[in-house]
Amino acid sequence: MFLRNFWYVAAWDHELGPQPLGRTILGEPVVMYRTADGRPVAFEDRCCHRRAPLSLGRVVGNDLQCGYHGLVYDPEGHVIAVPGQTIAPPGARLRAYPVVERWQWIWIWMGDAAEADPAKIPNIYWHDNPEWAVVGGYLHMKCHYQLLVDNLLDLTHETFLHAKTIGNEHVARTPLAKVTRDTIADVAGSALEGCATDGRSVTAARWMIGIDPPPLYAKAGGFDKPGDKVDRWQIIRFEPPSHVWLDVGVATAGTGAPDGDRRHGITHVVVDSITPETETSTHYFWTFPRNYKVGDRGLSDFLQKGVHNTFLEDIGMLEGQQRIIDADPAAREVDINADAASIQARRAVAQLLEEEAHGRAGSRRRA
Amino acid sequence: MFLRNFWYVAAWDHELGPQPLGRTILGEPVVMYRTADGRPVAFEDRCCHRRAPLSLGRVVGNDLQCGYHGLVYDPEGHVIAVPGQTIAPPGARLRAYPVVERWQWIWIWMGDAAEADPAKIPNIYWHDNPEWAVVGGYLHMKCHYQLLVDNLLDLTHETFLHAKTIGNEHVARTPLAKVTRDTIADVAGSALEGCATDGRSVTAARWMIGIDPPPLYAKAGGFDKPGDKVDRWQIIRFEPPSHVWLDVGVATAGTGAPDGDRRHGITHVVVDSITPETETSTHYFWTFPRNYKVGDRGLSDFLQKGVHNTFLEDIGMLEGQQRIIDADPAAREVDINADAASIQARRAVAQLLEEEAHGRAGSRRRA
Amino acid sequence: MFLRNFWYVAAWDHELGPQPLGRTILGEPVVMYRTADGRPVAFEDRCCHRRAPLSLGRVVGNDLQCGYHGLVYDPEGHVIAVPGQTIAPPGARLRAYPVVERWQWIWIWMGDAAEADPAKIPNIYWHDNPEWAVVGGYLHMKCHYQLLVDNLLDLTHETFLHAKTIGNEHVARTPLAKVTRDTIADVAGSALEGCATDGRSVTAARWMIGIDPPPLYAKAGGFDKPGDKVDRWQIIRFEPPSHVWLDVGVATAGTGAPDGDRRHGITHVVVDSITPETETSTHYFWTFPRNYKVGDRGLSDFLQKGVHNTFLEDIGMLEGQQRIIDADPAAREVDINADAASIQARRAVAQLLEEEAHGRAGSRRRA
Repeated sequence: MFLRNFWYVAAWDHELGPQPLGRTILGEPVVMYRTADGRPVAFEDRCCHRRAPLSLGRVVGNDLQCGYHGLVYDPEGHVIAVPGQTIAPPGARLRAYPVVERWQWIWIWMGDAAEADPAKIPNIYWHDNPEWAVVGGYLHMKCHYQLLVDNLLDLTHETFLHAKTIGNEHVARTPLAKVTRDTIADVAGSALEGCATDGRSVTAARWMIGIDPPPLYAKAGGFDKPGDKVDRWQIIRFEPPSHVWLDVGVATAGTGAPDGDRRHGITHVVVDSITPETETSTHYFWTFPRNYKVGDRGLSDFLQKGVHNTFLEDIGMLEGQQRIIDADPAAREVDINADAASIQARRAVAQLLEEEAHGRAGSRRRA
Repeated sequence: MFLRNFWYVAAWDHELGPQPLGRTILGEPVVMYRTADGRPVAFEDRCCHRRAPLSLGRVVGNDLQCGYHGLVYDPEGHVIAVPGQTIAPPGARLRAYPVVERWQWIWIWMGDAAEADPAKIPNIYWHDNPEWAVVGGYLHMKCHYQLLVDNLLDLTHETFLHAKTIGNEHVARTPLAKVTRDTIADVAGSALEGCATDGRSVTAARWMIGIDPPPLYAKAGGFDKPGDKVDRWQIIRFEPPSHVWLDVGVATAGTGAPDGDRRHGITHVVVDSITPETETSTHYFWTFPRNYKVGDRGLSDFLQKGVHNTFLEDIGMLEGQQRIIDADPAAREVDINADAASIQARRAVAQLLEEEAHGRAGSRRRA
Repeated sequence: MFLRNFWYVAAWDHELGPQPLGRTILGEPVVMYRTADGRPVAFEDRCCHRRAPLSLGRVVGNDLQCGYHGLVYDPEGHVIAVPGQTIAPPGARLRAYPVVERWQWIWIWMGDAAEADPAKIPNIYWHDNPEWAVVGGYLHMKCHYQLLVDNLLDLTHETFLHAKTIGNEHVARTPLAKVTRDTIADVAGSALEGCATDGRSVTAARWMIGIDPPPLYAKAGGFDKPGDKVDRWQIIRFEPPSHVWLDVGVATAGTGAPDGDRRHGITHVVVDSITPETETSTHYFWTFPRNYKVGDRGLSDFLQKGVHNTFLEDIGMLEGQQRIIDADPAAREVDINADAASIQARRAVAQLLEEEAHGRAGSRRRA
């Protein structure tokens, strides 16, 4: 069961070229393409004639032609031509999904089209702002999307799973400073301030003062001399259905980072756009914007590879969890303190699912 | 659910050698072998002792010996010897299936053996007639067999899926001239005349007059000079349960092909024997007989490869359909004009399934 | 449905090193490791926090730390540390399984821990006795464990499946001399005498007098001159839940082997410890001890490869059986004389399953 009246990332902008792209989203096969005039389009990936995948067809001008018997669909999913006959059968149309291209991504709305307000798309401004350098990628995971959300809301796993890159003992040792819901004030002063909305959000923060820098940041920020100490922060924001943004960084110890002065350090944002494919598989679109050395391509390559490899470590663990869950779905779980944010996020999602089930889909959001 | 009281192709004749062959047909594991005196035999591929696959055994004279504990089966599926004991257990026998070797193929009857009249085997006379050169093959497809029947009964897909070999725009643009049921007269004068039976059949035809020849025929028939025009025909015959024969060809434009004079052209038959493996997989036995340049091995090779590659294009599409169907089995379909023949074929099969369910299996056929 | 109140082999001793080992046993994911002080430990392979596989974690001293969020488990499966908090949540513990290291194997008890008496572990004394040379291995099979038990209790299959190594026509031709239950006297004088328990056991024996030696034994025992004849024996013992031991060998024909004088021959034991993984897959731990030429490494290599390859032949057949069973689980089976031992074994297991279901688990065993 998935939240439907929300914007999900369906693809990178560069994935939509002259060929249609098929991708399953929230369990539904979707075909996407870019019209001759450059507009992204999405509808069901199932020819209404004999259910051929339209993603095996071809783009003709602004339209999509089935690769099997040549039915032509306009960008709204209506059949506008059937080879060998002069009129299309009445009712020959597919469900079209609202899509918007923004922040280098293609966003899709799988719910009630009447509610698909582009203003509800999260503000991922770093992607289009020259003061930020952005690396990123796409990963496919054979696990329920919630496991990935949990992963990002409880960063103590860095200590154990990512000791070679971003983890050291301080993350797991340091409790979350606060976990709050529903107010934009929680990220005031952070890189997340500009993007956060005042919805069913969850915010958490962790401050690690005067610690050894973890390996990846030590190298990226030049804190790699013996004895270098840093103040490190992790400000975490979850927004339904499954967006997670992190403001993470390190600054020279004692220069005031906890109070907002991060000039003596480096700041990264981790942008996590998580889109359920099925109940047991997930699309993961991620970026890692930074606001320092933005022209340094060598650093960009180093970070792209480092983060990608870090996420591969996550995949191994998350797919392992899914295997164990499948072996005994009813086994119970025990909560720990570090779950504070993910428990709040699960509650927010459960509440919204309940509302969607009772027809109040999205009614409170942005109200 | 499959029709049972019909002959299906189970194997190529050359597949039955000194080793038993296991193949699932209509969902049932079947073992086939050739006796010492050359007769093809088929029964359940399941030793009645401990269910070892008999296809892992060996042929001993006219009998088949299980490769596990050595039980020996005669060609009728009776256990005739058990190592270490003098008599076979009463009731130790397997269901044997009537089989007939004809037209280079092994035909199997999965239904009521009492009705297994070899006279009901379709007349694929091209395979044994020296006036015809035959190429052919076997393909396995992960889709319901009906999707392949549909494919062959609506050749407009050639325009879109097979543009490199046998398709061009004229196929999809030209409506079927007629679709009829239940009379052999419909294929009078065609290469199908000799094989058609007057049963629950469906016949369709398409005539494309004065058109550009499609690539494969242009090369095969020598219609490859700039400006060459041809008259092209497709005469299509479906016979239950899942046999499709096509009389297809091209002749010099204006020489009278539509009226039956095809001396100035080339004629091919496409013989499609489709055997369900399971509800979602299919055995496809095909040949492509021609009645010109019958001694030209280079042409045979060219055609064998060309048709094989064309069918690989079909597999991609048909397996794609099956994937999409599996994702939402209840999704509805919309009919178009080009479906006229396949709709009739589906009706014929549905009617026969109904009759088999009510115990009148095959009663009308050939009656 | 599996018997639970029994010792199963879970691993070779050398498989438990500094890394945890995950293995599914009786359908349950189990993690095993060796503590710093060398003791084998096993509990559920599922972190009680968020169900990460603990087999992806690491051993820390005597404890196991989850590789995801760092929870630490003591050897009894209790959470003793949670990073970032001072006390572990009440009830945070996993089910621990009694394990014992003996006879080079790790034995696990999947049932009621209160009944896990190490004295009930079978006596595989050959593994630790310098008078015996031992080769062995591990194989994974995609079939129900009972199919492998059946295989070992009816050695007539050697004639048909293993003609290249241990089979010839005499095995299938020679009936079992006797099949008995529940008395240790049945293996008196055999190499099995020392290990057999007086429980719900089944014993069978076959004597082949004055026969040609099968290939593997001819080479191993030096009976490879033209005309060499041997007396061959197979003494077979099944003990629930799924242990099978064979005393097999050949001696110069007429030297008295049937009466117990085997000095003029060679004796092998085949030790088969069969552990269900799931309803359709099986762990197979085997050894092949011998009490002659115990220092001959070349012979050991020859036998290790020969037996391994012989068992690969079994895998092909057993997995074939499982495929055929899955295609029609309800198909019935017919018994033959050679099944006498396996039928008794199935009865013993069925009776014990009944007893476990009614709470009398193991009550009679060793009583």
